[in-house]
Amino acid sequence: MRPAVVLFSGGLDSSTCLAVARDEGFAPHALSVRYGQRHQHELQAAERVARAMQVPLKEVALDLRAIGGSALTADIEVPKDAPMGKAIPATYVPARNTVLLALALGYAEVLGAEDLYLGVNAIDYSGYPDCRPAFVEAFEKLANVATAAAVTGRARYRVHAPLLRLSKAEIVQLGTRLSVPYALTHSCYDPDAEGRACGRCDSCRLRAAGFREAGIADPTVYSQR
Amino acid sequence: MRPAVVLFSGGLDSSTCLAVARDEGFAPHALSVRYGQRHQHELQAAERVARAMQVPLKEVALDLRAIGGSALTADIEVPKDAPMGKAIPATYVPARNTVLLALALGYAEVLGAEDLYLGVNAIDYSGYPDCRPAFVEAFEKLANVATAAAVTGRARYRVHAPLLRLSKAEIVQLGTRLSVPYALTHSCYDPDAEGRACGRCDSCRLRAAGFREAGIADPTVYSQR
Repeated sequence: MRPAVVLFSGGLDSSTCLAVARDEGFAPHALSVRYGQRHQHELQAAERVARAMQVPLKEVALDLRAIGGSALTADIEVPKDAPMGKAIPATYVPARNTVLLALALGYAEVLGAEDLYLGVNAIDYSGYPDCRPAFVEAFEKLANVATAAAVTGRARYRVHAPLLRLSKAEIVQLGTRLSVPYALTHSCYDPDAEGRACGRCDSCRLRAAGFREAGIADPTVYSQR
Repeated sequence: MRPAVVLFSGGLDSSTCLAVARDEGFAPHALSVRYGQRHQHELQAAERVARAMQVPLKEVALDLRAIGGSALTADIEVPKDAPMGKAIPATYVPARNTVLLALALGYAEVLGAEDLYLGVNAIDYSGYPDCRPAFVEAFEKLANVATAAAVTGRARYRVHAPLLRLSKAEIVQLGTRLSVPYALTHSCYDPDAEGRACGRCDSCRLRAAGFREAGIADPTVYSQR
């Protein structure tokens, strides 16, 4: 089986994406980045889910707190119960998915993989610019001029974003069909000390609505509602 | 003066690039990345040069040793006295300039800067794919769909690579005219414990040839010749 690198946070979307990569015939290699995110609990979820799905997991450390500029990497409050879709929210991390895909590209080159999977979604999402089709396409173009493997003809990189045009409910249905262990995943941007989801940030609300609309029981443990 | 982010290793090229950014009317903000490079001495040079040039310096830590795949980030020997221009050498770091520019882009967005400077050179160089015009152009395109500032029309990013088409001798002449403190810079990939340059890696040889061909005294301290 050909290897693929899957950017993996231990959340609902990237766990589904991991299952899709495997379902599409790849041997997935999960890549997590400890970037100084407020919700470092997600990295424990990444370990749990990768273990349950029997997928190798690589963690890379990067201090994005040195750059800041986001509610996830600086002392800015995570918005709760905020309207979605009006403006790009404070949880946007400047250039984050560009950085993450760049790391995935480097890892792919070392593994000899040509396929990168990214669990971004442009339907039920917070409006982040680096979750849109134009971003995915531009990164794929860049990858194919940026690396030794591409330039010497050893690799032709593809960036797969299989959730891009699915609703959250469709993602939950797809992942349920592929036996994703959603009870082990973590989506909340602002969990309590025990790692329980807040239920009120964008990420929690999109996730909960996805389960509700899919008609599938939500296994998430919330600290408040 | 408008701010610009300059990727800055403390080497000959990026120090010249910093001087060019200032000469072109920007307030340069230097960004160094401690990525696990074998030649961490360059980060001390970055501090020295930034201080001498009175430019603010931000350092970000990133563990590229977790990914490896290069003589600079894994236990692979740095080639000495090797022919140049035949193949991409072992010192190529997979996707490194993509990662570095991604970090520069995030920093630019936080600073409110629209201009990124990168001291790459495609004339007297080791043949790295991410030092070529096609790479610079593809990253600029990506930047303008990847960020909140670009998507909302607050920023139109430009990636400047002012050394791209200069010979090493021309770079040395340009930097000398702009008073770059070359004696404080560090280029060697494999310095000795005291930080003295080996004189035999690609980077040392390109640098030495640049001073020689420019007819300018080389201030570098070498451990061997």
